[in-house]
Amino acid sequence: MNLTRSRFGKEADDLVIFYTSSLPFDRRLYAEDIQGSMAHAKMLAKSNIITDAEYQTLLMGLETIREEIENNTFVFKNESEDIHMAIESRLFEIIGNVAGKLHTARSRNDQIALDMRLYTKKYLNELMYLLSEVQKALVQKAEENKTLIMPGYTHLQSAQPVLFAHHMLAYFNMFKRDYERFADALKRTDVMPLGSGALAGTTYNTDREFLTKELGFEKVSKNSMDSVSDRDFILETLSAAAICMMHFSRLSEEIILWSSLEFSFITLDDAYATGSSIMPQKKNPDVAELAKGKTGRVYGALMQMLTVMKGLPLTYGRDMQEDKECYFDALDTLTITMRVYSGMISTMKLKSDRIAAAIGQGYILATDMADALVRKGLSFREAHKAVGLLTVYAAENNLTFTQVPMEKYLEISPLFDENIKNITVEQAVENRNQTGGTSFAQVEKQISAAKKALGI
Amino acid sequence: MNLTRSRFGKEADDLVIFYTSSLPFDRRLYAEDIQGSMAHAKMLAKSNIITDAEYQTLLMGLETIREEIENNTFVFKNESEDIHMAIESRLFEIIGNVAGKLHTARSRNDQIALDMRLYTKKYLNELMYLLSEVQKALVQKAEENKTLIMPGYTHLQSAQPVLFAHHMLAYFNMFKRDYERFADALKRTDVMPLGSGALAGTTYNTDREFLTKELGFEKVSKNSMDSVSDRDFILETLSAAAICMMHFSRLSEEIILWSSLEFSFITLDDAYATGSSIMPQKKNPDVAELAKGKTGRVYGALMQMLTVMKGLPLTYGRDMQEDKECYFDALDTLTITMRVYSGMISTMKLKSDRIAAAIGQGYILATDMADALVRKGLSFREAHKAVGLLTVYAAENNLTFTQVPMEKYLEISPLFDENIKNITVEQAVENRNQTGGTSFAQVEKQISAAKKALGI
Amino acid sequence: MNLTRSRFGKEADDLVIFYTSSLPFDRRLYAEDIQGSMAHAKMLAKSNIITDAEYQTLLMGLETIREEIENNTFVFKNESEDIHMAIESRLFEIIGNVAGKLHTARSRNDQIALDMRLYTKKYLNELMYLLSEVQKALVQKAEENKTLIMPGYTHLQSAQPVLFAHHMLAYFNMFKRDYERFADALKRTDVMPLGSGALAGTTYNTDREFLTKELGFEKVSKNSMDSVSDRDFILETLSAAAICMMHFSRLSEEIILWSSLEFSFITLDDAYATGSSIMPQKKNPDVAELAKGKTGRVYGALMQMLTVMKGLPLTYGRDMQEDKECYFDALDTLTITMRVYSGMISTMKLKSDRIAAAIGQGYILATDMADALVRKGLSFREAHKAVGLLTVYAAENNLTFTQVPMEKYLEISPLFDENIKNITVEQAVENRNQTGGTSFAQVEKQISAAKKALGI
Amino acid sequence: MNLTRSRFGKEADDLVIFYTSSLPFDRRLYAEDIQGSMAHAKMLAKSNIITDAEYQTLLMGLETIREEIENNTFVFKNESEDIHMAIESRLFEIIGNVAGKLHTARSRNDQIALDMRLYTKKYLNELMYLLSEVQKALVQKAEENKTLIMPGYTHLQSAQPVLFAHHMLAYFNMFKRDYERFADALKRTDVMPLGSGALAGTTYNTDREFLTKELGFEKVSKNSMDSVSDRDFILETLSAAAICMMHFSRLSEEIILWSSLEFSFITLDDAYATGSSIMPQKKNPDVAELAKGKTGRVYGALMQMLTVMKGLPLTYGRDMQEDKECYFDALDTLTITMRVYSGMISTMKLKSDRIAAAIGQGYILATDMADALVRKGLSFREAHKAVGLLTVYAAENNLTFTQVPMEKYLEISPLFDENIKNITVEQAVENRNQTGGTSFAQVEKQISAAKKALGI
Repeated sequence: MNLTRSRFGKEADDLVIFYTSSLPFDRRLYAEDIQGSMAHAKMLAKSNIITDAEYQTLLMGLETIREEIENNTFVFKNESEDIHMAIESRLFEIIGNVAGKLHTARSRNDQIALDMRLYTKKYLNELMYLLSEVQKALVQKAEENKTLIMPGYTHLQSAQPVLFAHHMLAYFNMFKRDYERFADALKRTDVMPLGSGALAGTTYNTDREFLTKELGFEKVSKNSMDSVSDRDFILETLSAAAICMMHFSRLSEEIILWSSLEFSFITLDDAYATGSSIMPQKKNPDVAELAKGKTGRVYGALMQMLTVMKGLPLTYGRDMQEDKECYFDALDTLTITMRVYSGMISTMKLKSDRIAAAIGQGYILATDMADALVRKGLSFREAHKAVGLLTVYAAENNLTFTQVPMEKYLEISPLFDENIKNITVEQAVENRNQTGGTSFAQVEKQISAAKKALGI
Repeated sequence: MNLTRSRFGKEADDLVIFYTSSLPFDRRLYAEDIQGSMAHAKMLAKSNIITDAEYQTLLMGLETIREEIENNTFVFKNESEDIHMAIESRLFEIIGNVAGKLHTARSRNDQIALDMRLYTKKYLNELMYLLSEVQKALVQKAEENKTLIMPGYTHLQSAQPVLFAHHMLAYFNMFKRDYERFADALKRTDVMPLGSGALAGTTYNTDREFLTKELGFEKVSKNSMDSVSDRDFILETLSAAAICMMHFSRLSEEIILWSSLEFSFITLDDAYATGSSIMPQKKNPDVAELAKGKTGRVYGALMQMLTVMKGLPLTYGRDMQEDKECYFDALDTLTITMRVYSGMISTMKLKSDRIAAAIGQGYILATDMADALVRKGLSFREAHKAVGLLTVYAAENNLTFTQVPMEKYLEISPLFDENIKNITVEQAVENRNQTGGTSFAQVEKQISAAKKALGI
Repeated sequence: MNLTRSRFGKEADDLVIFYTSSLPFDRRLYAEDIQGSMAHAKMLAKSNIITDAEYQTLLMGLETIREEIENNTFVFKNESEDIHMAIESRLFEIIGNVAGKLHTARSRNDQIALDMRLYTKKYLNELMYLLSEVQKALVQKAEENKTLIMPGYTHLQSAQPVLFAHHMLAYFNMFKRDYERFADALKRTDVMPLGSGALAGTTYNTDREFLTKELGFEKVSKNSMDSVSDRDFILETLSAAAICMMHFSRLSEEIILWSSLEFSFITLDDAYATGSSIMPQKKNPDVAELAKGKTGRVYGALMQMLTVMKGLPLTYGRDMQEDKECYFDALDTLTITMRVYSGMISTMKLKSDRIAAAIGQGYILATDMADALVRKGLSFREAHKAVGLLTVYAAENNLTFTQVPMEKYLEISPLFDENIKNITVEQAVENRNQTGGTSFAQVEKQISAAKKALGI
Repeated sequence: MNLTRSRFGKEADDLVIFYTSSLPFDRRLYAEDIQGSMAHAKMLAKSNIITDAEYQTLLMGLETIREEIENNTFVFKNESEDIHMAIESRLFEIIGNVAGKLHTARSRNDQIALDMRLYTKKYLNELMYLLSEVQKALVQKAEENKTLIMPGYTHLQSAQPVLFAHHMLAYFNMFKRDYERFADALKRTDVMPLGSGALAGTTYNTDREFLTKELGFEKVSKNSMDSVSDRDFILETLSAAAICMMHFSRLSEEIILWSSLEFSFITLDDAYATGSSIMPQKKNPDVAELAKGKTGRVYGALMQMLTVMKGLPLTYGRDMQEDKECYFDALDTLTITMRVYSGMISTMKLKSDRIAAAIGQGYILATDMADALVRKGLSFREAHKAVGLLTVYAAENNLTFTQVPMEKYLEISPLFDENIKNITVEQAVENRNQTGGTSFAQVEKQISAAKKALGI
């Protein structure tokens, strides 16, 4: 009979056991669960709730179980409701009735809260590390192509010339905020819940501050009912994860666009592209497409957890068991996306001829011309209008700005001159020289700051 | 070298293979994939694109693979991108180069569209069947307790007396709409996409009408670009699934409430309840809590798929590979929830004494009194006011309506009389005797109609 | 004192009145509310619950109120909780105490259910009409450009040539499914809830079948508790709306891409484009961008309503008041998006020279070559490999397929010949001539069928 | 002609103007827009881009417009695309052509980024203030009822006795985390984007550090492309808002439960409850129901914004205009919910007799008995079993623990004694005396700490 069913007349229905069991997914938490149990046993001994000999026996038993799991010799039985019970049952088999003392002054409610916090701390640190690797790839790619000018876009329309490096560094900045958000989530995860019992604390003379230190937490939780009901740290991590994946979805969209025949700005390394089962010519940016698609996965996980927690009365409800699969999946999705992106960015090649050709098309220097007219005395609105008329003339006659005759310029506004007519993209870039602008000097500054921040 | 990489200089990076592979989850589609391939091969032979001997060889090879998979002797290799490639590679091993003919006039784009539609058809039928089993349990429980009166609630406040059977039948009606929605989704799923090729159709003289018949579809798809881009049938199934889970979440909330000590309206069978690791007295309605929590799962899946499809240009994009795990998970969640609910509803016991006690508390017959005053000539608004005053008096003096002295009644309104004062809950129920009302006769009618519809 | 507060000691707090009032948004339902009240009064008279004279007075009062609202002379007072109370209070002012009889045998719970169903029916019909207008624009644009060949894409990579008309008709098919989904939602909306009372039916001898006929509904609702708790028709409409907006988001993405300098496949009419406040040369596809962005709005509305309904015990809860603003907003979003798209599609111009140039780039005929080799005896997998090698050679040497010398072809496979080498995009299109394929004949067939379905 | 359409042949279609206009909702930003324009003009003068006289004219014009808007004399014209254009057009009317100089070195892209950040800063501070007001109400209610013991729940089953104050403080802790999350969002919002131009910076010699100081920002943004594309601060605020509303939804659910006849733990003040149009006895907790329902609203807004931003290539796209209505609505929803909750919590009354009765029912002291057995030598698992058997016996014989005869206790375990049998709820509470536990001393400590943190 299941350890929790002392008052029941019969076992749970098989389908119910299957429905309610979390073992298939919470077994991922075995290391955290054992780490928590070891610290708990140590505290029980220190507080004279169990003897030192009992502690040593528990420790040995837990260590054995850890090894069994890591050597794949541990048998996960279907009738165990969860990883806690799977480990506890096995502990009985290994060390006998002393095993029954481990659950003193503890409930599965505070135990799972602890496991999930330990696990989240580990993953947040991993996410922060991997994100900095992606940032390094971006900065390196920026630095390799420091002088490459490309069209900058708004509304996917060619707008003004920018440095490719500047474009890469925009993503560096997005990921920097993601990094900070993960760090902030970590602060609020780093709170030790064990000792909160089922909901009200325990009747034993436990030492929660000792546990906090032993388990490497920053702080102890301050209210037992909140401690077992709180899944904010998961929601906050998922929120930060959703925003981070959104950033990857934007970068992915650009990689897909730049890989199209029509843009042809980049070539992905063959190791990061896939083929077609039917069209022999195809080289598809599947990694970027999947990263974009996987954004949905993380959004879905966030929506799931928000739904699960909505309207739950205090304290623990079994609904909250649904905090795991979507969360683990989101963490996996983020880590592998970051890993694969580092490599894909590092190895992608830029097609500078195609980029230059794209810049030559259209009227990307229109703003610069208008600004030049302003410097010669027009208000910006008048200048905007003058260059608007010039553009219409040029487009209708299928001419570039330099091909339009000077007379036409002067007809539109006497303030036009040869210098304005012959503005270059290099000048245009160079002129945007305030903090955050795309000029060579400013971008150089951004690169230096980024490298310093990344320690490279 | 992977069959699709004829033009590539190197293999994909290992991490990329892992990132892009769908084999770990799309292997669930093996039966549909093989069924589709068999029909495709038959059509190729009938259309003289392959010989009859080649067809027989392909058929034998595919049959062998099906057996291998079902006997767990098939080796799913990591380097296979997906179930299609896993099967095709194995086919080469078994029957040699003839295997190369199977992909004639077919792309993975129309192949996966076919597999997903076949799979969806199977599951929609399963969902409809299981839902009718839940409906049967509800109707049976209603019939067993045909005369049991309980408090009906609005705002979770005791409002008017209703038959418990009427309450159960409200859920019967919700699930009836779910059933219809699944049936409507089935209509739009029952369209045969094979032969659409990668996006544009194929250059072979294929016979798509033959395939449609052979595979048991109602209709053939009418536009090849749409055929390979369309995942509406998944979204529509997920929408219907989300609404259906919402209904289960409502029923679950009621089962949780009714199981609380404060309500105590029902006792779940021990086989459908769980205990606590720390509190020996607990009997928790975990199945209902999990069903409520799992609602988040299906909502999340819908949000995921909507996000995946947003803004995708035609035709197939690899983003669309993300249509599987969340979808399979949602289908699993629904089917098991339905299964476990049939049993839980069938076995739950009603505590009629506690229900009767709950009905006795409060002023549940207030509306009936007001209605009686209306029949004696007051306007409803005046009657509402009179009974409002009566309620204030009774509540302040801690009396039930029958305990309030007749003089007090008459002081409030001379139209009150002994009949009004002594209205019973049975009368209250009996009086609600229009179509859809809670009277004994109307509920009897509902039960008969439900049984007829369910064929029981 | 508010009509519903007969038993309260004081008025609600001002902030509470503001918080709970739905009048600022449910006043949109005035016409449905009055229509419902008129039918209800007629039924009360017919059932001898009120006199004919009272009915005439109520009718006159309600008619007056309708006129006041439509002439903007009606004063919506802040203290009215909702449109029902706003109208009823005014009714008292106009016709005196007879007004108090209108709420006989009715609750706001069944009243709002009726209003929302009437409103939904009206909007679903509107959505279906507007959708068919968009479909007409697509079919017309397809027919105008019946022979225009463009690159077809998978993974945003040029894949195989298709007819532009075929591409337009893919959207015709998506919207056809949306239309059917709206029609299916309409079936389940077309159920008359009035007479369900607060939750249990009413104690009056009402005639719900009469109301059903009078209000033009198909069916009467069968369970009063379900009738006042059910918001499925809103959720189903929102689901269909979300899928429909997803389709618009895909079309929008293509219009944005095609409007970019790099694609330049289309020119939007000036009336459907916007400029930049700073860049005089810009012509931005803002309508398409907004339609794509507004997809989020409808997804958000669906998620909102799913969240609202999750876990609500029967019957009506005030949570359900939150079914309105998001829903009205989603309906508005869809209707205006459809309206503006009809015009934008009708007026957009195709740039056939740029489309032809795009088709000339790259190796879009690779599949056709492989298929031709298959017809000369290779298996598809061998043919795929041969054309893969050809593509690598051509790309490395910067040649088109026709520029590769014949010897090179034969070196790769002796089955290549001049016909294969010189396949044209016209042939490629023509060859895809099965049901749903992109051939001229098949697309012609699609257009005829579409026109017939649309009655044009 | 619209100021941005210098190159267009005609005006936009009326429907397009309506579709693309953000004026109906972004007019809320007028104060931030004018504040930004004034600082921008000051910087232009300081940098000698405009003259001091021009600056004074601009200032006077902007000041006039602010007054007009605040006095409701400003005419918002439909043809204005947005608040920026509405103000600029009016500026031309008031001060003539000098108005044209204001847009020098600025684009609407950096202008709206500035407005939204200023607005968000204002609202985040407001949210933090209002949240602390709710916290004060909770702490005050806790302190008023410092010794009141109530049932603590898990799975909505009576589990262990807790102090009502402890329960209130659980919510104090949740809102504390919300407060911190808003503060963290504020850090990342407090970055000055103006001067980023359309996307690339500007060609003028502007001083962004001056602007940063002038507008009271902490930092200047570091990359112009990121500055105009970034809506993270909105997403982060919405994420924090969604989690915060989830907390309110949990508290709301409890208030609804506690207000039910079956629980009857609290009475809401009449000012915070509503009545029924049909059932005169009803007193409904509508505020709590609406707060729960409005959770969906904020979840929906978050999903909307995540959807909007998904897959957008850099830099600004018109999709991003959809960042406003859902966001403003979410901010409004939160602020009013906080306001109304402060009052509702402060005024609610506790029904200590009903709470005491609820605690007397059931077997809430089972854990305490098991713990006592552990202290006498049993392992926890054995003790759990013994009390499980006791519970079965008591429940089957319809006895409370104290009613079970001592012999029965000893039959189950010889370690039971009178002290164990007669444990009181006061002892049970008192015994949970570790950090975070529910003992009187610990809760007293929590209250003091909370008051100190709130400065009360």
